[in-house]
Amino acid sequence: MSLDGTYDEGNIFAKILRGEMPSAKVFEDDHVFAFMDVFPQSKGHTLVIPKHSRARNLLEEEPQVLSHLILGVQRVARAVRAALQPDGIVITQFNGAPAGQTVYHLHIHIIPRWEGVPMGRHASGGMADPKELAALAEQIAAKIS
Amino acid sequence: MSLDGTYDEGNIFAKILRGEMPSAKVFEDDHVFAFMDVFPQSKGHTLVIPKHSRARNLLEEEPQVLSHLILGVQRVARAVRAALQPDGIVITQFNGAPAGQTVYHLHIHIIPRWEGVPMGRHASGGMADPKELAALAEQIAAKIS
Repeated sequence: MSLDGTYDEGNIFAKILRGEMPSAKVFEDDHVFAFMDVFPQSKGHTLVIPKHSRARNLLEEEPQVLSHLILGVQRVARAVRAALQPDGIVITQFNGAPAGQTVYHLHIHIIPRWEGVPMGRHASGGMADPKELAALAEQIAAKIS
Repeated sequence: MSLDGTYDEGNIFAKILRGEMPSAKVFEDDHVFAFMDVFPQSKGHTLVIPKHSRARNLLEEEPQVLSHLILGVQRVARAVRAALQPDGIVITQFNGAPAGQTVYHLHIHIIPRWEGVPMGRHASGGMADPKELAALAEQIAAKIS
């Protein structure tokens, strides 16, 4: 998929937002929803998405929604840090398949990093254990402030 | 450098903002400053930074500044797309050295991607030709809207 295209209501994040698919939820407010990535690139890999959006990527998003989204990312990233004490945190956002995008609902990755531990490739480690993700989500959720 | 620490006024982006160091400027408004990365990971690799900030990373930034920053990123990313017609765009932001951060003034990377062209490692290709960067900056600046 290129940068062009139309929003598909059947994408997996839209299904999660509608409650049609499960997720390990970390945080939710009026604007954003945060949950564990099921193909984590490191322990604690969390996604933050806008709840009221039909933007496939950052280029298409409404300014107001984008502002709320980045504040949600900051809030969740601080909680990830407090919960897991990583040495660093990578924030990434992909626009278009050649950039690494696989789901076409705007989303931002929060990927904790530890000294000496290389970052995994997305999906290379396979799908994570749902119980482990739920436990991580709970740990991070407890640190949201 | 870990996630902890204090802002160093002598960092290279602070120098660029004060006009003590040159840069290939793409865009500037009251809130953000955008310029070409001198160690580009792809053609058109652009950085967007807050102008009035003493935040080393995203975790530390003031909410208001962060909102302006992400809107600046969107504006510049749209111009990068219009100018260079990439197949995708990667947005990244690194917090702490183990996450890849090398300059401790909050900054967001806009990295255009083309189908079949691998992304370079930061600094692996060496410093870019200042004339080429100035030409790219001019191309992108012409598409800011």
